[in-house]
Amino acid sequence: MAKIASRVHSIEVSAIKQMPIIASRYSGTIRLDQGIPDFPMPKPARDYVAEAFRTDKGITQYTLQPGMTQLREAVSGSIKDKYGVAVDPENELFLSAGSIEGLLCTALTFLERGDAAALFSPAYEPHIQQVRLAEAEPVYFPLEEGSWRPDIGALENELKKGAIRLIYVCNPANPTGTVFTVGEVNEIAMLALTHDAVVVADEAYDFLAYDKPYTSFLPLFPEMKKNLIVTKTWSKSLAATGLRIGYVVACDEYLREMLKVHDSAVISAPTPGQYAALWALRNPNEAEKAVEEFRSELRRRRDLMHERIRGIPQMFEASTKPEGAYYFFPRMAFGGDSVDFASTLVREARVSVVPGAPFGPGGEYHVRMMFGAPVDMINMAFDRLQQYAASEDFRAYVKRVQKIS
Amino acid sequence: MAKIASRVHSIEVSAIKQMPIIASRYSGTIRLDQGIPDFPMPKPARDYVAEAFRTDKGITQYTLQPGMTQLREAVSGSIKDKYGVAVDPENELFLSAGSIEGLLCTALTFLERGDAAALFSPAYEPHIQQVRLAEAEPVYFPLEEGSWRPDIGALENELKKGAIRLIYVCNPANPTGTVFTVGEVNEIAMLALTHDAVVVADEAYDFLAYDKPYTSFLPLFPEMKKNLIVTKTWSKSLAATGLRIGYVVACDEYLREMLKVHDSAVISAPTPGQYAALWALRNPNEAEKAVEEFRSELRRRRDLMHERIRGIPQMFEASTKPEGAYYFFPRMAFGGDSVDFASTLVREARVSVVPGAPFGPGGEYHVRMMFGAPVDMINMAFDRLQQYAASEDFRAYVKRVQKIS
Repeated sequence: MAKIASRVHSIEVSAIKQMPIIASRYSGTIRLDQGIPDFPMPKPARDYVAEAFRTDKGITQYTLQPGMTQLREAVSGSIKDKYGVAVDPENELFLSAGSIEGLLCTALTFLERGDAAALFSPAYEPHIQQVRLAEAEPVYFPLEEGSWRPDIGALENELKKGAIRLIYVCNPANPTGTVFTVGEVNEIAMLALTHDAVVVADEAYDFLAYDKPYTSFLPLFPEMKKNLIVTKTWSKSLAATGLRIGYVVACDEYLREMLKVHDSAVISAPTPGQYAALWALRNPNEAEKAVEEFRSELRRRRDLMHERIRGIPQMFEASTKPEGAYYFFPRMAFGGDSVDFASTLVREARVSVVPGAPFGPGGEYHVRMMFGAPVDMINMAFDRLQQYAASEDFRAYVKRVQKIS
Repeated sequence: MAKIASRVHSIEVSAIKQMPIIASRYSGTIRLDQGIPDFPMPKPARDYVAEAFRTDKGITQYTLQPGMTQLREAVSGSIKDKYGVAVDPENELFLSAGSIEGLLCTALTFLERGDAAALFSPAYEPHIQQVRLAEAEPVYFPLEEGSWRPDIGALENELKKGAIRLIYVCNPANPTGTVFTVGEVNEIAMLALTHDAVVVADEAYDFLAYDKPYTSFLPLFPEMKKNLIVTKTWSKSLAATGLRIGYVVACDEYLREMLKVHDSAVISAPTPGQYAALWALRNPNEAEKAVEEFRSELRRRRDLMHERIRGIPQMFEASTKPEGAYYFFPRMAFGGDSVDFASTLVREARVSVVPGAPFGPGGEYHVRMMFGAPVDMINMAFDRLQQYAASEDFRAYVKRVQKIS
């Protein structure tokens, strides 16, 4: 039996990926676990990719290692249009296999043993795993329960100690839905500049702020090139999680280093995803129309799930509506263990949610529920949860877990 | 300026990916660099994927983290058919974003500071980079110049010292074309078992042995589960490098650990590639027919390139034909620096090849030339090389490099 490296021994497969595997063993389970909205990719994008598979050999071949030249130019153009800033398509961005691979390149490039990375917590679990994979230590800054607002003062105090290299900002945040205000974004940026840390802005849900304007870190790129890395993805905005396509913006000195990891990780981003992204950038009106439909439909589903959560107070504390992304993160009303509870819900109610504990401090006693599922499915899931919550079995379960704790 | 982690600082973007970027700056350059054969993916496979893009939402969505259940079952079935051994589709294999991502998971899972990994050299350069990315040390076992046969005795002596965790076997080998004999495969397997090392069998070119039977490590899996990891890919056999799809076979204890890295690297393998692989496994006759066409066409191109290399003795020493894969690795007839020579060839002859030095000891004074390009292209490239070799400029170049060395 070979020895397992300590960097891997110390981490887990994210609960977000474990729950679908558990759910797949119970047929008929309704999945509110992994972040896959039920929308299809917009039809003209699918037609464009399908046509390329029939007629364009390029779609099945490697691209240049940082991505297709015309796609990098189109990304740079769209950043200029949207945020008014210049990003050099040749030296300041590359196409990644989803955001996650860009984030892996970031962690392995900037973190090593003895370093620390700041995470607002509950945090997006893969950020935690990637920090550990890079042999660094996560330092958590708990968001305020319920409102999920960050405590920037606490971050500042820790930055003064000097060990923090990266500050992860998942905005809108997964799993809490926090949308960072313009004030919070500017304060964090200023702290990074002052203390020579690098903000890692994971902006996968940038089009999903429901109640207030969204503030990206990208417009700050020219002033904080040495202190900012931004990752974006088409997984959510094109409803194309399976195509594994995103991009990373970083200054040229950083990008050169990150591309070494990218090269060792996937060689080049999957080409069908690059074609789909090119469609979106060349057809901004159609792509934006799809995004608006997603957003308005998701707002409707959010309001529905909010009502349904309030309908089972013996199971969940009433939570505020998330400001962004597509997850509720309600507190369990009865204490207990979130990992055990999530398994129990699959088994007893055939509803799969993600336990909160793996998202770090502040995550325990919560579960994450995705509202990307269609209305009928959300209703059916909550009918099941409600039925289970009203059952003798659930009362017995609550009694048992309360006795343990 | 943020500090760059030493694991990344110590490596380079592989020359295999740098040459295409350099080549893209000189229009009209003929590319014999990166391993992209010019074949299209078989038409029925392209039609299958295209149709799924039009009608099946699943092709744009995440799959389960280890890959689609039906695909894992089909892979297991094809291994059973082809090699007669049982691989549990649930616990002993996962779908990766090309071989490279499976190999990254391997390096990060089994290697850490203080460990060593054995590589037959000239080695596939990304293996070297991945070993370094995992903070371990590569130990090289030079293949015999020209015949490119391994020295198994040297490997045994080093294994006795106890630091070697992984033994990389790229078979057929990139860049040398070495096809390991059944005797060599069995000897290496026995050494791994005896000295408790793990063979990492990278079998990307398993269908491309031209002159003698091919010996996979896979049939040995049942007897050496704790000492063997096998990676395969459809990149070459389906002519689908851009789809980024391959798989890894490992025992369940190892797979569980490797999936943590997979999760942090790409979440799940790109879904369009998984569909293409499913097509190949469900249509083995059609897929095998395409593979036979590739092989017979590549044999023809190999013979052509062999003749053409012999036609410019002032540039290359006559080399034997490679036994497998689709690369020649001839020695430069005039000494010099391979990195400088490769850049010079792009600039002066508009032909892009890969310098040999980055492939490790034994690689310097060689270049790698891919014969996946069509016959006309190979001829045109060698017409250019021949013309340059006959020029005053080339004689001046040779004089200059010989003076330096």
